[in-house]
Amino acid sequence: MSVQITADRMADIARGAAILGTGGGGDPYIGRLLAEQAIRRHGPVTLVGLDEVPDDAVIVSVAMMGAPTVMVEKMPGGTEIQTALRAMHEVLGEEITHLSCIEAGGINSTIPFVAAAETGLPLLDADGMGRAFPELQMVLPTLAGVSTCPLALADEKGNSALLRTVDNRWAERFARSIAIDMGCRAMTLQYVLRGDQVREALVPGTLSLVERLGRVVREAHGRRDPVAAATEVLDGHLLFTGKITDVARRTTGGFARGTARLEGTGAYEGRTLELEFQNENLVARRDGVVVAGVPDLICVLNSDSGEPVTTEGLRYGFRVSVVGAPCDPRWRTPAGLDLVGPGYFGYDHGYVPVETSCAS
Amino acid sequence: MSVQITADRMADIARGAAILGTGGGGDPYIGRLLAEQAIRRHGPVTLVGLDEVPDDAVIVSVAMMGAPTVMVEKMPGGTEIQTALRAMHEVLGEEITHLSCIEAGGINSTIPFVAAAETGLPLLDADGMGRAFPELQMVLPTLAGVSTCPLALADEKGNSALLRTVDNRWAERFARSIAIDMGCRAMTLQYVLRGDQVREALVPGTLSLVERLGRVVREAHGRRDPVAAATEVLDGHLLFTGKITDVARRTTGGFARGTARLEGTGAYEGRTLELEFQNENLVARRDGVVVAGVPDLICVLNSDSGEPVTTEGLRYGFRVSVVGAPCDPRWRTPAGLDLVGPGYFGYDHGYVPVETSCAS
Repeated sequence: MSVQITADRMADIARGAAILGTGGGGDPYIGRLLAEQAIRRHGPVTLVGLDEVPDDAVIVSVAMMGAPTVMVEKMPGGTEIQTALRAMHEVLGEEITHLSCIEAGGINSTIPFVAAAETGLPLLDADGMGRAFPELQMVLPTLAGVSTCPLALADEKGNSALLRTVDNRWAERFARSIAIDMGCRAMTLQYVLRGDQVREALVPGTLSLVERLGRVVREAHGRRDPVAAATEVLDGHLLFTGKITDVARRTTGGFARGTARLEGTGAYEGRTLELEFQNENLVARRDGVVVAGVPDLICVLNSDSGEPVTTEGLRYGFRVSVVGAPCDPRWRTPAGLDLVGPGYFGYDHGYVPVETSCAS
Repeated sequence: MSVQITADRMADIARGAAILGTGGGGDPYIGRLLAEQAIRRHGPVTLVGLDEVPDDAVIVSVAMMGAPTVMVEKMPGGTEIQTALRAMHEVLGEEITHLSCIEAGGINSTIPFVAAAETGLPLLDADGMGRAFPELQMVLPTLAGVSTCPLALADEKGNSALLRTVDNRWAERFARSIAIDMGCRAMTLQYVLRGDQVREALVPGTLSLVERLGRVVREAHGRRDPVAAATEVLDGHLLFTGKITDVARRTTGGFARGTARLEGTGAYEGRTLELEFQNENLVARRDGVVVAGVPDLICVLNSDSGEPVTTEGLRYGFRVSVVGAPCDPRWRTPAGLDLVGPGYFGYDHGYVPVETSCAS
């Protein structure tokens, strides 16, 4: 059943999306403002479930690509979506019928609302991974054999590029270079899917999930522990509670990369946790031992409010809680782990599901 | 009057083109082999003068982009032209009727013959600058207000990119990044021109000129000084004769950049010449004083044979002659000098025409 999403629902959606974004996917405050403004101007967005999408639908995913460290300073200028749509329409030869999110995140779950409001197209209650990952090819459509091309990139100046590549890794490589040239962030349209492909290639219900996640955190405020409330929705595990004592960050190769170190508080007094990130949190080591890692989710929340802390928002002195949560089961297959497992990111530890490492 | 170019004419064309390429535009030996092979396989190429092109003709320029230092090791694989044509046809909405060279050079005057032979399209007896320059926007069509976009890039793997940019500098920037990702060289299709634009935007007779240049050098062999013969055709001036005593070269930012130092021989005994290059020779300083610089041509020739020495071919010990020659007069206008004059390349010396500096 389709529902109308009004501007007043965007705060919960953006908050929940940034939690599910595992540190990446963009800043929820900026994302919320952009979506609220677009919905107020153009009207509510129609959200449709995957089971309502006709088989011959033409679905395109909308996302910002680049380093979140840059995106908090250089926001979308308002014309990028139209520029990218023009580039896409030039080669598509048919009308786009629906839009989709490709990942969860404060920007990447809300920018599709902006595009949907501007174009009047319905938005799928879904995404392409059930979290956020740093590289273009790291999506379930890749596992389903779908090409990310034709892929359109656009900047705020009116520049666009349209890529056709032999595989999704090449698309990531070219698109990353162009995104860097565009100021380290670009609007993208990617993964043209048919209606009969979305049920295999996307994660159903992601936008409903992030709205629920955002709501329970808000409603917990002053009544119960918001971190516990979020952990429950994520079916996750509390990994650590502590204070950030060190953040090393560099914006390089088109990504925000770095590490953060936490010293434990409360039950974790005297212990340490180290996070490594590439836009998203990749691995969490507690007292030097891996307790969670890609493709499972590592979410950093403000310990008091439960608000998500994105990797570009990590700051010395913040009191945070770190939650691990299981990823979509398709990421735990051999093909899924090849694409986004620890090995791809250069780690030599094998993958252990977060519920297993937390049970020991 | 159109003429048929057979494979046996490519050696002169490639040689002359590499002379006019002022050190850039690619290796003439590789260029010659590629064109000969294509003409032998597909038949002769029809060369047409600018005055024969109908006003409604659709002309596209074909060129390799990247660092010539890489192109001598990584040659075109044979499918790039077709991949680039597919990307271009997707957005062009009409049939290409003619091909053109955009610059002179051992590769960039011969690759268009390969494309013409493969497609059966006629090739214009012209080019876009009357020499070679390192960056995409450095062409007379830019001065005439023509966009380089739609611009198609392709590699040997089957990857392509199609750019639409707000100006030609942005096209250079994105295309350079993609060319680097493609292995520091890419096939490009650029500057879609109408027949009624080519007379303003191109240099007429370039391919006839380079064939004549290549022929006089060949025919001079053993009969007269081939360097003097080439200088005469170029309406140029001998700047120096000497031995290369130092070459510093690096392939960086998608270009072959560097300097070469020459010690004088014969009439130039005891004197020095320094060349600076970015794919092409940019400036020649004799005893520390600029004697020729962009946009005028600086051509390095083997002193004995008159064969062109491209910047990637400069080697310690080579005996070479350096010839300066006047550029197309459109480059000497204020707009032309803004685009390709010494200031653009970071030099603080003003532009002095080579015939003036050689007269003093």
